[in-house]
Amino acid sequence: MRIDLNSDLGESFGRWELGDDRALLSVVTSANVACGFHAGDPSVLRRTTAEAAARGVAVGGHVSYRDLAGFGRRFVDVPPAELTDEVIYQLGALSAFTSVAGDRVRYVKPHGALYNAIVHHEEQAAAVVEAVRAFDPGLPVLGLPGSRFLALAGKAGLAAYREAFADRAYTPQGTLVPRREPGAVLHDPEAVAERCLRIARGEPVEAVDGTRILVEADSLCVHGDSPGAVETARAVSERLRAEGVTIAPFTGAPAAAPPASA
Amino acid sequence: MRIDLNSDLGESFGRWELGDDRALLSVVTSANVACGFHAGDPSVLRRTTAEAAARGVAVGGHVSYRDLAGFGRRFVDVPPAELTDEVIYQLGALSAFTSVAGDRVRYVKPHGALYNAIVHHEEQAAAVVEAVRAFDPGLPVLGLPGSRFLALAGKAGLAAYREAFADRAYTPQGTLVPRREPGAVLHDPEAVAERCLRIARGEPVEAVDGTRILVEADSLCVHGDSPGAVETARAVSERLRAEGVTIAPFTGAPAAAPPASA
Amino acid sequence: MRIDLNSDLGESFGRWELGDDRALLSVVTSANVACGFHAGDPSVLRRTTAEAAARGVAVGGHVSYRDLAGFGRRFVDVPPAELTDEVIYQLGALSAFTSVAGDRVRYVKPHGALYNAIVHHEEQAAAVVEAVRAFDPGLPVLGLPGSRFLALAGKAGLAAYREAFADRAYTPQGTLVPRREPGAVLHDPEAVAERCLRIARGEPVEAVDGTRILVEADSLCVHGDSPGAVETARAVSERLRAEGVTIAPFTGAPAAAPPASA
Amino acid sequence: MRIDLNSDLGESFGRWELGDDRALLSVVTSANVACGFHAGDPSVLRRTTAEAAARGVAVGGHVSYRDLAGFGRRFVDVPPAELTDEVIYQLGALSAFTSVAGDRVRYVKPHGALYNAIVHHEEQAAAVVEAVRAFDPGLPVLGLPGSRFLALAGKAGLAAYREAFADRAYTPQGTLVPRREPGAVLHDPEAVAERCLRIARGEPVEAVDGTRILVEADSLCVHGDSPGAVETARAVSERLRAEGVTIAPFTGAPAAAPPASA
Repeated sequence: MRIDLNSDLGESFGRWELGDDRALLSVVTSANVACGFHAGDPSVLRRTTAEAAARGVAVGGHVSYRDLAGFGRRFVDVPPAELTDEVIYQLGALSAFTSVAGDRVRYVKPHGALYNAIVHHEEQAAAVVEAVRAFDPGLPVLGLPGSRFLALAGKAGLAAYREAFADRAYTPQGTLVPRREPGAVLHDPEAVAERCLRIARGEPVEAVDGTRILVEADSLCVHGDSPGAVETARAVSERLRAEGVTIAPFTGAPAAAPPASA
Repeated sequence: MRIDLNSDLGESFGRWELGDDRALLSVVTSANVACGFHAGDPSVLRRTTAEAAARGVAVGGHVSYRDLAGFGRRFVDVPPAELTDEVIYQLGALSAFTSVAGDRVRYVKPHGALYNAIVHHEEQAAAVVEAVRAFDPGLPVLGLPGSRFLALAGKAGLAAYREAFADRAYTPQGTLVPRREPGAVLHDPEAVAERCLRIARGEPVEAVDGTRILVEADSLCVHGDSPGAVETARAVSERLRAEGVTIAPFTGAPAAAPPASA
Repeated sequence: MRIDLNSDLGESFGRWELGDDRALLSVVTSANVACGFHAGDPSVLRRTTAEAAARGVAVGGHVSYRDLAGFGRRFVDVPPAELTDEVIYQLGALSAFTSVAGDRVRYVKPHGALYNAIVHHEEQAAAVVEAVRAFDPGLPVLGLPGSRFLALAGKAGLAAYREAFADRAYTPQGTLVPRREPGAVLHDPEAVAERCLRIARGEPVEAVDGTRILVEADSLCVHGDSPGAVETARAVSERLRAEGVTIAPFTGAPAAAPPASA
Repeated sequence: MRIDLNSDLGESFGRWELGDDRALLSVVTSANVACGFHAGDPSVLRRTTAEAAARGVAVGGHVSYRDLAGFGRRFVDVPPAELTDEVIYQLGALSAFTSVAGDRVRYVKPHGALYNAIVHHEEQAAAVVEAVRAFDPGLPVLGLPGSRFLALAGKAGLAAYREAFADRAYTPQGTLVPRREPGAVLHDPEAVAERCLRIARGEPVEAVDGTRILVEADSLCVHGDSPGAVETARAVSERLRAEGVTIAPFTGAPAAAPPASA
């Protein structure tokens, strides 16, 4: 049994700090690193990729709409060809820093509103796939199971990996319960850890209405920018390891030495 | 006899177009391509690098302060470590597009106020050198002869190339006559071409006061964003070729086929 | 008979120039001035408002999504409360410059994708209306007849004015023929002028299929950023004046002296 | 005896929060509110001005270079005419929100690198003065005693107020000890409060070398974005009140009701 833990990192910008990257990097095996379009200035990119490399954490491009003011959380109706170019730009910028850190970009995971849009938005999904293919057809992508994004990525010959959300409730259909609905976010670290263990084992979990559903995932997304988030991530990691689950990047063996905490 | 012609390209942004890139790409052998910090959005980068590659024009990173509103023409007192990271970011972004175009970034030439600052500003000069070295120690730089930038680049083991300005008057000391002074810019295409020919041949040229001085250069910078600029560039190119001067990238043989117009 | 001619102005930004503002200001009676979110830096705002005031042209706030890279032409799913604040911010910035110019902001016309969105998007339409109301409940708005924006503006007690597009074809239902369809844009200055005259007189005009429809408008929008646009605007203005139509700001008598060319 | 306490507020941006504005607003009598160029998005401006108005805290325009990435802490060599326009733009934007809040902008205090630059930089100092004068010649400015900014403001007929820094050490000459030097920042709340009291009373304080110097000030600047800062500000406020010093805006009586905590 083996699964990956991913989290969003490098989301500071200039004077503004966000998230406890150092703590998260001691927990996760894949880091979705902001590329400057919704967060992450060049020095944040440098620091984050250097720390990830030092810990053997795989770096993924957390590509976004160009929207600092909205943190990439607002849908932008970018024409597909421009979106492709914007994603290539971000991947190039990030990849300069992974290269300086002695590593390389290992995967691509769209961020925020872009992530949500390409679950259904055929043209934007295709645009992101085209960006990854043009940049490096050997680069895997990480996304929502059942999304147009993963489907089109697969068709284009990209390795497409699925993620589950550690702290989000699921509908009986296996989609996420929208954040604005009650019970959408799980707060009890033990309950979150228990559910992650079931997903890692391929066992059914409880949907928001009590139904048992199967959530297939290559990676579990844990969050780091809310109170208690790092503790929850740590609880997940400890529980999984205690139960004999190997936590490792979904993209394969880490480039550098395994994390010291392993 | 051999010399390079370089020009600033890819300086459009979004809705705003600037310069006649297509015309210039038929004249120059090296293109200083804006990387998004003073000009150049991702789609402009893609188009410019693709056209440069198609014509065998060498692409250089025209790196700048982060200053869209000022077009990179205002000195910014960026702390050196941040400047290094900002330059790496730009080189990475550009390099994604040269790679998509089947080529790679061939050199680095700082833009605007950064170019001027690092003639004397030791720390910023060192910061840019460090960025190039960290990104790719095999990447040459292009700059002003006698600048701290070229001196430090040479010390750091980077190949350092010198440029002269086709349409700018020189002082008896070999520095540029400031733009605000009378006679700072040459407008007669034939006079410009004649002077370029002398520089290419290693012959002395006339300074603004009539003194004869030697301007050593590996590349001649021609401009494209003012009225008549493309005509002047063309006059230079034609005159040089007519006199048997080979016009070729200072960085070596072009990556792709020689330009169709050659 | 009396009608207003409006046009988008002040759309330059930093090094990038767009449109022939000087020529247009000699033709139109209302200037939709970019406020910095899709175009227009502070110095452009200052120059544009000063020139408009000098010519007695009414200045309107051409408010937009925050989207320099996309020139405000991409829909952005901004939460309504944020959109309200973004519009207030732009109106405040513009109003500082009209005040310096000895005048004031006379109306608000949303720009680009925002203009199009609030034809139907209830929440964003209400958000823009709320911004105008909060900023100055005496400020009129200009928009598309039949739009949710004008309807909600009217309900909120704002003076709501309707505009027609001089160079765009209409469907039999009185909506604009989408730009991507054939015949969507009229290019013949005389045909454009003839149609404007009919609109000014309250006479029916020909829809794209030959049907005769009534287009009611307080202002005619002429464009200035495409080849021949200024000539077309001038043709419209001359034809209307020749036929005895008074061209004057829909917001009332100009603040300053009438334009010298009147 | 009477003095003002001012602090920097509204420095959040989008997803990023900075400083404990709510706590500071219960302590200070003047709020230097970021206007969007170094921090502060439109919704932050709205919230901050509303809360300041509700508490009777005077709002000042904390105008800055256009430099989000550097938080306005990097000198930018903006041409004076552009700087004037950038400051007018910011004052206009802020003033829309103070107006919505039922108040108005009460003074101008330049931020960060601009504040420091115009201590000596004649042209930029004059540019800021010109902006204030053009925007509203009745608007006071707040700055460093002895600065070119205050001198030129006075000459231009603006009311010029002087501030002292509660937690910064002074040289025997009465200038600030640079941050990089030992002892530059005072950390003991009681020592800070004691010094503030002396300044409020017009009594000499100890310079970094033990010399006694006179620091004349109309306002004391307290900081809120470092650990313990709010506590220090509160200690200053309590000590001053306990000793019978009236804490009130240097710009005069508050517009709204006096703060509840008064």
